[in-house]
Amino acid sequence: MSMLGDQSVAPHSLEKEAMAAQPKPQNRPVSNIVIITEALPVVNRIQLTQDFHSSFPQGVPWVRYHGTYKDLNINLIWAGKDPALGVDSIGTIPSALVTYAAIQTLQPDLIINVGTAGGFKAKGASIGDIFIVSDCAFHDRRIPIPDFDLYGVGSRKAFETPNLIKELNLKVAKLSTGDSFDMTQEDESLINANDATVVDMEGAAIAYVADLLKVPAIFVKAVTNTIDGEFGNKPSAEEFLQNLAAVTAELALAVEQIINFVKGKYISEL
Amino acid sequence: MSMLGDQSVAPHSLEKEAMAAQPKPQNRPVSNIVIITEALPVVNRIQLTQDFHSSFPQGVPWVRYHGTYKDLNINLIWAGKDPALGVDSIGTIPSALVTYAAIQTLQPDLIINVGTAGGFKAKGASIGDIFIVSDCAFHDRRIPIPDFDLYGVGSRKAFETPNLIKELNLKVAKLSTGDSFDMTQEDESLINANDATVVDMEGAAIAYVADLLKVPAIFVKAVTNTIDGEFGNKPSAEEFLQNLAAVTAELALAVEQIINFVKGKYISEL
Repeated sequence: MSMLGDQSVAPHSLEKEAMAAQPKPQNRPVSNIVIITEALPVVNRIQLTQDFHSSFPQGVPWVRYHGTYKDLNINLIWAGKDPALGVDSIGTIPSALVTYAAIQTLQPDLIINVGTAGGFKAKGASIGDIFIVSDCAFHDRRIPIPDFDLYGVGSRKAFETPNLIKELNLKVAKLSTGDSFDMTQEDESLINANDATVVDMEGAAIAYVADLLKVPAIFVKAVTNTIDGEFGNKPSAEEFLQNLAAVTAELALAVEQIINFVKGKYISEL
Repeated sequence: MSMLGDQSVAPHSLEKEAMAAQPKPQNRPVSNIVIITEALPVVNRIQLTQDFHSSFPQGVPWVRYHGTYKDLNINLIWAGKDPALGVDSIGTIPSALVTYAAIQTLQPDLIINVGTAGGFKAKGASIGDIFIVSDCAFHDRRIPIPDFDLYGVGSRKAFETPNLIKELNLKVAKLSTGDSFDMTQEDESLINANDATVVDMEGAAIAYVADLLKVPAIFVKAVTNTIDGEFGNKPSAEEFLQNLAAVTAELALAVEQIINFVKGKYISEL
């Protein structure tokens, strides 16, 4: 598809918001969970072991951890290190690919995307907060043509888990996803239009694939840094690294609690 | 992955540019080609027929056309219409997914990404030009952390086809890819850093997946609109639509010529 020159971008309308995935009804409790995460401490918390013979194709850096945790079959997929550069394969494309491959090869009942996020203080986010995401959207896909604008924003509802949220007393927020670590004015405008409290680099891509393939997906995001924080001359990257270890440990604990809650329940009971 | 607040982005260094895919040596001529395109007139030009029983999973809108053209087994994959919104599934995520799925299910010897592009007059592009791409990169993945910056830019060499370029007298250019139809100042700065003559919304994502899975990929891009054109008050979108039909027909002809050239040749002879 061609790309055009400089044009103003109209804020997207939410009228035609895409529907959340309608999972197939199941006559048994959830038994097969895929966790997609870049937060590897989750692996240790729920005692998974690396599968060195994963069914992923040769060449991809994706890593699968597997285990049975309280009768639940759990696979955790990490997108791994970029083969050429050695850095983590962050962002929407690897996330979309591992979600697709994990659904194809593992056929989960439920996907749980677990990760870190930036948060807006002005929207009620504090460092260490753990949010369940109600809605995902993109903030860096501006296509100012009718309906393509909505496609670009790609707003999707996460699978609704009212009982989980109530039982674990989790905060709920909207998530906005983009492939950049910084935030331009255009990004900020669309993050605001998405009414997002938390921002990441993966969620909406995972939601897109899960929606296409009709697998219910939930999103658990821990705030490692605030985007509108008061630290005038303290780089947000420094704040991020300082908080990462502690927040990730909290996130792993939350995932364990979520799995304990899911255990034995039908998908409609979450 | 978390996202940070407003930060300046350093231009990327090209020192650690990722290597192009090193295809496996083959002891037979190219026989199995996958074309990934949004330019459907190509289908008619090389007389492919739609496969209504493609091996893609239920739910995805991807469409496969198939045919044998002068002894070559050719599959053409179109990402299809978004199930919720009915618009074409443009952009990097669907492109990455169909490339992955096409490689997994069809095991091509060669991928040809065929599509339209915007071009920069100042870099020598004119409407109707057809370029073979030498290098692909992204211009909307800004990650200002060492090595992550290069990962975000994701610069990759296309599979080199010096004989094809000479024989068909094709122009060669660098391609920059992003998920927006407009161009912000930050995009423009990175497009310049990528030294791009043409810009699209798919190429670098297809290059990423082809590189991971070590399938040689070439990119054929036809210029439907100029980004730095002289049409002061003529919207580039109008220019795009006016030119689309004629340019797409030229593109289909070029693809036929490329396939005729590939026929009977080893991958190393392209």
